[in-house]
Amino acid sequence: MRINRRTLIRTGGAAMAAGGIGGTVKAQSSGGNLPPHVPEWMQYQGQPYLNPAYGTPSPHEADVVRRSIAGFVTDTAVASWTPIHRLHGIITPNGLTFERHHGGVPEINPDEHRLIIHGLVDRPLIFTMEDLMRFPSVSELHFLECSGNSSTEFSEKSSRLSVQMSHGLLSCCEWTGVRLSTLLDEVGIKPESKWLLAEGADAAAMTRSIPIEKALDDAIIVYAQNGEALRPEQGYPVRLFLPGFEGNSNIKWLRRIEIGEQPWQTREETSKYTDLLPDGTARQFTFNMPIKSVVTFPNFEKSFTEKGFYEISGLAWSGNGKVAKVEVSVDGGSTWQEAQLQEPIISKCLTRFRLPFTWTGQPFEVQSRATDEHGDVQPARERLIDEVGRNALYHYNGIQGWKVAENAEVTNANA
Amino acid sequence: MRINRRTLIRTGGAAMAAGGIGGTVKAQSSGGNLPPHVPEWMQYQGQPYLNPAYGTPSPHEADVVRRSIAGFVTDTAVASWTPIHRLHGIITPNGLTFERHHGGVPEINPDEHRLIIHGLVDRPLIFTMEDLMRFPSVSELHFLECSGNSSTEFSEKSSRLSVQMSHGLLSCCEWTGVRLSTLLDEVGIKPESKWLLAEGADAAAMTRSIPIEKALDDAIIVYAQNGEALRPEQGYPVRLFLPGFEGNSNIKWLRRIEIGEQPWQTREETSKYTDLLPDGTARQFTFNMPIKSVVTFPNFEKSFTEKGFYEISGLAWSGNGKVAKVEVSVDGGSTWQEAQLQEPIISKCLTRFRLPFTWTGQPFEVQSRATDEHGDVQPARERLIDEVGRNALYHYNGIQGWKVAENAEVTNANA
Repeated sequence: MRINRRTLIRTGGAAMAAGGIGGTVKAQSSGGNLPPHVPEWMQYQGQPYLNPAYGTPSPHEADVVRRSIAGFVTDTAVASWTPIHRLHGIITPNGLTFERHHGGVPEINPDEHRLIIHGLVDRPLIFTMEDLMRFPSVSELHFLECSGNSSTEFSEKSSRLSVQMSHGLLSCCEWTGVRLSTLLDEVGIKPESKWLLAEGADAAAMTRSIPIEKALDDAIIVYAQNGEALRPEQGYPVRLFLPGFEGNSNIKWLRRIEIGEQPWQTREETSKYTDLLPDGTARQFTFNMPIKSVVTFPNFEKSFTEKGFYEISGLAWSGNGKVAKVEVSVDGGSTWQEAQLQEPIISKCLTRFRLPFTWTGQPFEVQSRATDEHGDVQPARERLIDEVGRNALYHYNGIQGWKVAENAEVTNANA
Repeated sequence: MRINRRTLIRTGGAAMAAGGIGGTVKAQSSGGNLPPHVPEWMQYQGQPYLNPAYGTPSPHEADVVRRSIAGFVTDTAVASWTPIHRLHGIITPNGLTFERHHGGVPEINPDEHRLIIHGLVDRPLIFTMEDLMRFPSVSELHFLECSGNSSTEFSEKSSRLSVQMSHGLLSCCEWTGVRLSTLLDEVGIKPESKWLLAEGADAAAMTRSIPIEKALDDAIIVYAQNGEALRPEQGYPVRLFLPGFEGNSNIKWLRRIEIGEQPWQTREETSKYTDLLPDGTARQFTFNMPIKSVVTFPNFEKSFTEKGFYEISGLAWSGNGKVAKVEVSVDGGSTWQEAQLQEPIISKCLTRFRLPFTWTGQPFEVQSRATDEHGDVQPARERLIDEVGRNALYHYNGIQGWKVAENAEVTNANA
């Protein structure tokens, strides 16, 4: 016997401090001490032995996958988006990290792969993977975001209806490797060094120029993500990782670093990956991903099923340091409440935010606004577009709104 | 043209402070500014489009897998060990988290799964998965260790030659769910409540009694690991998670929590999971996993390939809080050096330690010794066995030694 009942739940301390939002959540009374009947799956032995030696998700989670869009010029210059609307916490599992390739995913034999460092150095050197893994290593949790993530929101009307496709060129892993500064100590860079060129071993020979300051600061030559070897689509066996920098500069399948005095003006910093301004000029080498956030629940696939208590949740991040604050508005931006931030808050890493919420069944618009430790605040969409115009393709970080309809359907407020 | 050269590398600050261990690492000079020839995989487009929508590791990593042993009584009461010797940082990818099942892995439909909380409560309730996911959530990084991990080291001679099989019932993930205390607020536990019973929905109906203090402290009803839904072998769709407690008490496929006044004395706390002492008595309800560490490099599969610089690395953890210090000995325990600890150090979570090391080509024994924030120190194997005897099966945390031979082969110093 089961009956419906509603019972008030107490929300967390931060929520109470933020105004005491409470709510109700439905649960079913058991009508006594009897547990539910014994389900079928308790009546026989389960899967006999190891799931495969390398495990896979439940078949019931088959819709939690990377997604793509049709219409790219070639089938190897493509992208896939992480299902951030179905993820929890801050870690992106390796099977779901977003992809962006310019010439497909090369199939590299790690035993044959080499990394050369040359140019303005005392001792040009070639490293095997085994060489690289002998050096002192570091592991750090950082987000990775494509510079073009959310670029559709520059348009007057966004074509992206789901948060997966508007904000899902975004992932967060624990990255392990050797500091680039350690390797630069090995080769001995000359005093006049100002830039380096990083080149990938893919068919596009993807290349970017990187300031030497970043190389000597926190850059990592990465060979592992979330504990295991880099995935093929993430640069196996080795990539450049530049915490907080736009995704494309984190050269995958890294084979060559050249040290020089000036940027190389490669096609990826002239024909692409510059920020075109309204006056026709373009900003170059705008590496740092700005302060940004997005609500991931409610979303186009998972929303409210009835009136009552829910937790609004989302992600915030900054290429310039730690997230200091995330505010959430449930009235289209008129008033804001401070959300709870998941600890530990890590520099240049995703930060999960959460806010208790009671849905009354009325339509509303939800937004989030992040502030970083330097006081940089995520701008309103209109203000951002006023500043950089609509020609821009990269570094979109406007406040994102989601409209929740009376039937709980969630749509892009910019669409 | 490539020539061999050796070049001194500077090690990290912590290493210098610990005595200035330096070393050499081999790298190959390019003999000029020419990069290596263009490899085959740069000469054609790569894999054309998404790797599967849910990605998989490189085929070159096919030996980085969970492993098992023959000889269990049934093929559903089994275990598999995490390849901790091939992992980096602190995160265990979901495909490699260790397994221990008592009746196989049930195939549960999450839409039909229910969690009942009943017994000494005001309002017995039944929760659907959707109900559980509406409550305020938390995400925390914690290790999970089988209480029987390393139990073979109690024997006079260990039968386990590799660190995977001696210490690999150990994993670490970001776990997301609702605090059990939140749900207990919902049902309203009666003042006389002292214990709870947690029951799994597997064919073994795995049950353990848990003190109510733990339930009201940091216990979590977990539905996600490393961002995505729990894996089937980790309790999909929901499990109990008790940070720092022995693995078996973290009931998987959780279907029932009963509140009571006394422990239930289930078969898992009478016939198993007690610590048998030399005098024939047994300790019951010894939940907390003690301070422990192990060196994971060098290991039986990856060791030194020549004399020179390497990084000794391993994992440390405590069920009682944060790891405060890890010392490493490279002379069989005569002298100790403090290792560098990976930040951030998180309570009841794996902590990676690292120590620069130069191998001279001589045989030696490497050991690690961890200390937690309360001053608890990992004991020498002999002292632990003196205290608890050789009948014990659980909570082994003795200092582990690995012998490195002149040919760099690594073997268990207890074998």
